[in-house]
Amino acid sequence: MELIPYLALGSALAGLALAAFFYTNVKKASPGNDRMVYLMEEIQKGAKAFLKQEYTWVSGFVVVMAILIAVLISGYGAFTYVIGAILSGLAGYVGMTVATMANARTTEAAKDGPSKALPIAFRGGAVMGFSVAGFALGGLMLVYLLMVDVFALADGFEVVTSYGLGASSIALFSRVGGGIFTKAADVGADLVGKVEAGIPEDDPRNPATIADNVGDNVGDVAGMGADLFESYAGSVIAPIALTAFALQLDPSASSGEDGYIGTGGAFSLLMFPMFVAFIGMVSSIVGSFFVRSGSSTDSRALSRALHMGTNIAMGLTIVGTVAGAYWLFGDAEVFDQPAGLAISVVGGLIVGWALGKSAEYYTSDHFKPVKQIAEQSETGPATTVLKGISIGMVSVAASVALLVIGIGVAYWGGDLAFGDTALGANGFGGIYGVAVAAIGMLATTGVVVSVDAYGPIADNAGGIAEMAELDPSVREVTDALDALGNTTAAVAKGFAVGSAALTALALFKSFEFALNKAAESDGQISRAQLDAGETILNLNIGDIEVFVGLFLGAMLPFLFAALTIDAVGRAAYQMIEEVRRQFREIDGLREGREGVNPDSARCVAISTNASLKEMIIPGALAVIVPMVIGFVSIDALGGFLAGSLVTGFALAIFMANAGGAWDNAKKYIEGGAHGGKGSDPHKAAVVGDTVGDPFKDTSGPAMNILLKVMTIVSLVFASAFVSL
Amino acid sequence: MELIPYLALGSALAGLALAAFFYTNVKKASPGNDRMVYLMEEIQKGAKAFLKQEYTWVSGFVVVMAILIAVLISGYGAFTYVIGAILSGLAGYVGMTVATMANARTTEAAKDGPSKALPIAFRGGAVMGFSVAGFALGGLMLVYLLMVDVFALADGFEVVTSYGLGASSIALFSRVGGGIFTKAADVGADLVGKVEAGIPEDDPRNPATIADNVGDNVGDVAGMGADLFESYAGSVIAPIALTAFALQLDPSASSGEDGYIGTGGAFSLLMFPMFVAFIGMVSSIVGSFFVRSGSSTDSRALSRALHMGTNIAMGLTIVGTVAGAYWLFGDAEVFDQPAGLAISVVGGLIVGWALGKSAEYYTSDHFKPVKQIAEQSETGPATTVLKGISIGMVSVAASVALLVIGIGVAYWGGDLAFGDTALGANGFGGIYGVAVAAIGMLATTGVVVSVDAYGPIADNAGGIAEMAELDPSVREVTDALDALGNTTAAVAKGFAVGSAALTALALFKSFEFALNKAAESDGQISRAQLDAGETILNLNIGDIEVFVGLFLGAMLPFLFAALTIDAVGRAAYQMIEEVRRQFREIDGLREGREGVNPDSARCVAISTNASLKEMIIPGALAVIVPMVIGFVSIDALGGFLAGSLVTGFALAIFMANAGGAWDNAKKYIEGGAHGGKGSDPHKAAVVGDTVGDPFKDTSGPAMNILLKVMTIVSLVFASAFVSL
Repeated sequence: MELIPYLALGSALAGLALAAFFYTNVKKASPGNDRMVYLMEEIQKGAKAFLKQEYTWVSGFVVVMAILIAVLISGYGAFTYVIGAILSGLAGYVGMTVATMANARTTEAAKDGPSKALPIAFRGGAVMGFSVAGFALGGLMLVYLLMVDVFALADGFEVVTSYGLGASSIALFSRVGGGIFTKAADVGADLVGKVEAGIPEDDPRNPATIADNVGDNVGDVAGMGADLFESYAGSVIAPIALTAFALQLDPSASSGEDGYIGTGGAFSLLMFPMFVAFIGMVSSIVGSFFVRSGSSTDSRALSRALHMGTNIAMGLTIVGTVAGAYWLFGDAEVFDQPAGLAISVVGGLIVGWALGKSAEYYTSDHFKPVKQIAEQSETGPATTVLKGISIGMVSVAASVALLVIGIGVAYWGGDLAFGDTALGANGFGGIYGVAVAAIGMLATTGVVVSVDAYGPIADNAGGIAEMAELDPSVREVTDALDALGNTTAAVAKGFAVGSAALTALALFKSFEFALNKAAESDGQISRAQLDAGETILNLNIGDIEVFVGLFLGAMLPFLFAALTIDAVGRAAYQMIEEVRRQFREIDGLREGREGVNPDSARCVAISTNASLKEMIIPGALAVIVPMVIGFVSIDALGGFLAGSLVTGFALAIFMANAGGAWDNAKKYIEGGAHGGKGSDPHKAAVVGDTVGDPFKDTSGPAMNILLKVMTIVSLVFASAFVSL
Repeated sequence: MELIPYLALGSALAGLALAAFFYTNVKKASPGNDRMVYLMEEIQKGAKAFLKQEYTWVSGFVVVMAILIAVLISGYGAFTYVIGAILSGLAGYVGMTVATMANARTTEAAKDGPSKALPIAFRGGAVMGFSVAGFALGGLMLVYLLMVDVFALADGFEVVTSYGLGASSIALFSRVGGGIFTKAADVGADLVGKVEAGIPEDDPRNPATIADNVGDNVGDVAGMGADLFESYAGSVIAPIALTAFALQLDPSASSGEDGYIGTGGAFSLLMFPMFVAFIGMVSSIVGSFFVRSGSSTDSRALSRALHMGTNIAMGLTIVGTVAGAYWLFGDAEVFDQPAGLAISVVGGLIVGWALGKSAEYYTSDHFKPVKQIAEQSETGPATTVLKGISIGMVSVAASVALLVIGIGVAYWGGDLAFGDTALGANGFGGIYGVAVAAIGMLATTGVVVSVDAYGPIADNAGGIAEMAELDPSVREVTDALDALGNTTAAVAKGFAVGSAALTALALFKSFEFALNKAAESDGQISRAQLDAGETILNLNIGDIEVFVGLFLGAMLPFLFAALTIDAVGRAAYQMIEEVRRQFREIDGLREGREGVNPDSARCVAISTNASLKEMIIPGALAVIVPMVIGFVSIDALGGFLAGSLVTGFALAIFMANAGGAWDNAKKYIEGGAHGGKGSDPHKAAVVGDTVGDPFKDTSGPAMNILLKVMTIVSLVFASAFVSL
């Protein structure tokens, strides 16, 4: 069992090797003619320029936080914080570089049909997927082994948690910054290009087209990658932190049956999450080889090919987890029936899948809700907007119901696993079950992110086909590939959302334990008092500080949403002005005169500057607010975290699903329903889609990270709150 | 001090007498020419028909609930429940009858200028205001005196709580049903009349015009009245219930220094809220006589006249409360420094006022937010909608910050009042302070509702002027009066929202005490255990049942909002179809041929039937969900109530302010900004306004009642949850 961290580290390295293999694979393919290479390089240049500037800004933040951690917590913590941040940034950078290489190559391959193009797009995405998973797990295992095993630091587990905070910091800024960039460019390109100038989407004359394509990469690829890096790392960290703080494990203490090293004791609890991560990584690697499109060009066959990788990886993860729970942990003394943990993990997986399906139901045009929005577009934009809002809100009810079932099953599984043992009796078992359920959802991150990153690559490939003025048949192929990506992305979305809630819940509980641990070292509470059930943290809702915290917590997600929506609005406004200016001032641009090119670089620069400026306040809020509340009252902070988690979860689901539903209602109408493109219902649907843009691509996805950043900040600084 | 309930009862009767006096006053005025009388009677007929049907439906619900209460709780409880429901309905009926008499009379008086019309509109509203306040307080005092003083029932205080539930039931259905009616009619009238047929607002040719005017009365008058009836009654009940359950008072037990009758003991705690209510009622009566417009027709003078009544009432209430706290309660043994209570009450009043001002800031066109929305309308409906959403969300932050300050001040005042006494030490004092702060906001309900109900009367008067085709100068006068109403309504809104949160908080705490009391009678916990701080209710957020409850609680307001938005959509759709049909089938209607009248009654009937059908599910939800959760797990119910309170408060503020801001942005543009009426920005603003209609007039205001209904249902059925 001692080998598990090394196995996990090894599997992470294997994942990175696979990413390297796919990279050479993609690189070998031809990027097409000069025009295509030019466009690809423009997009690549823009994306890299954005990332470079973003990382410059964010590194300032990272330095400040690292100093804070070094001063208030420990130097080692500051070190692992920086490691987490750097690896997350690196994964995003690598993934995006390859994604911006794969786009033109997919376009070129699309000339020979979808069965040639699909593997390139998938492998381009897989570089991202396995970079994210490999760096996240590899870095975490390295930090774990160093801090806990090698150095045997007394605060080794706190230091591991800092790694998660590093990843979360990058994720939040990437999601917010990338989300603002992509929507500003999108809105700018659409509004002036399509609506005012009357030229088609992705037209080379439109100065914002390149920026729009850059946005797909920085938002949907780099942002999403950083998001899943932190979700994945967080899901593995949560049960480790929970165990360590709840049982007050101290890696530097001597070993023994109940101590850290004893194989029958707490050690199994630390190893189980790593084991699931290891199984998931191996399964993902195996699964990724099953994405083969064969010779069929039928869209259902292609969709099956794409789903095959994920399905196989999940199946293998389930089998491996169940087997491992029995064989590897079967005789661990700390468990009564380790099979219970398999219930938690598999339950988590199933609920994550169901959350994805629920999102698909509310946002896909194959089902009633989106059709109802399309229908309401007959009576104008107001009814379209209202229907989208009510559908988004109803989807909250469905998702919370599923989540509550998931929590219930995971808790029950955990309870079962510990049975009548000491840990089972005090309720620790259930929450441990909840923590490992989140890993169940994210164990297959490698392949899930691959499929997710495939989408924007196919999307970009279509853009290049259009801008390079290739034969329309090429665009048709890329459009078909793009459409496949939309349904597969729903699964990843469900996992991201569900795991965020479960991980935050486990981290919240760890926060409680961490405070007690800190209070004990600080002499504010004795071991005997703790054993008697006393606690330094009062979480009774009936107490006014906790309730005030709940109110403030429920408010913050609204404020965050407002700030990010406004940020998109302001950035888009600047972009609109610039595109208008170019059409006005560059002679012959609108008419498409030979040799007249728009100044795309300027549009990219505008989106970059605006989005980076706008990401500061909402991003900083997530770190500053919990710290301020924590130093005033830890009880209020407890209420605050709980309030923001439940309200933020609801608001995130509402915004993501309402936005997705509007988007697809518009596409449904563009497909010919209710009068098709250019009709009044279409115009109404475009309004809904525009309202939904910042909902689904900026505020909604960033909300999940916000919740975790706030919890993990509180967890990392717990000892400072207590002792200062 | 024993006289206080009788004084309060007496002041309530005086309020009712004042209502009767104003009634005769209004009745004496001339309702104008035949056409005006016809219109007035049509509106009156429609409104009464709606109320009659609504009450028929609701009485079915009341009977079911009464049986449930009789079986599960007590026959007396069922009786007071029915009393609460009947009085609330009665207040709504009386108020609405007079409001629908006052409209034409205001129009007629407007021929002689605003200084003649203002008193009539105000007195019409004052009948509503003092009916609401008089019936609510009078009924409550009667029930109190009967159950507690005369019968000395052992469960006398629980029975008093049932009175509040009766009022809440009616309020919820009135708000939801009335809200759906008014918006369905409004949207139907606007969309087909103004947009499709191109005829002005309130045009007699429009079949939905009468229904629209009926809607103003059933939604803004009867619905608002029932809302404030329950808020007011609830705010007085909350501290009484809190005291009774916390101190386990039993009116049937023998008297004594620490018992019920002892003037130095708990008795003062029961009397203080009634004393504030008494002072507030007397102050309101005095204040109402200061609404005199004099001879000036200047709009600022008129506004001053209207505000004068409220300001005087509030000033007197503050003075009376401070004086009472010192002189009357100064030597009550239970208090250390009764002045602390004055801080709570006055603090509540000020925060309520500030909440109103905050709502005004975010929704009035004198300030930046609304101007920003108007500016965004330049770039189309999507940006208009997004800006309204972000402004609504930012306003949540402002309101929660104010509320938290209010809770803090009230809590601190309560703490101060009890000081080092036994009650001060265990934290009861603070929450008692919060409970009485809510009364501070609502003590002047009589005059506040008068001013609030004045608005729709002036609005209706304008409608009648238009439909009766009077001289445009009359319409100008009524428009000026209407505009005054909008600013004064903001204060009432702030009080309603703030007191809802404070009352729900106090009731929530009472719920905890009530469960313990029930568990003790049931033998599940002993007096000694309770005294040692044990409790039957676990409210620790760290426990999974409580957290699951929080998640479910955060979800319910979203579901409720979705259901009510959809209900408005469906009802409006039926109305639109009907208006279109009439324009199509009734020959000469659109052209306005002499003698051709629309079938207004049919439109009223459609709105009535649709809104009553649609109110069932959201209304029932509020009662059924907490009961189901409560019978499964009281801990989860505790979390559920807290989660729904904090999230529902945020969502209610968001919806109300976003809706109000869109409405006024549209009016601002209609006033000539950004191209004025008929311009593209105006069309975009109309979209925003239509999205906001169900936000501000249906879902938003109903949300506040939802929160209290759920808490009070839990409180009333607490003993059943414990013993079944």
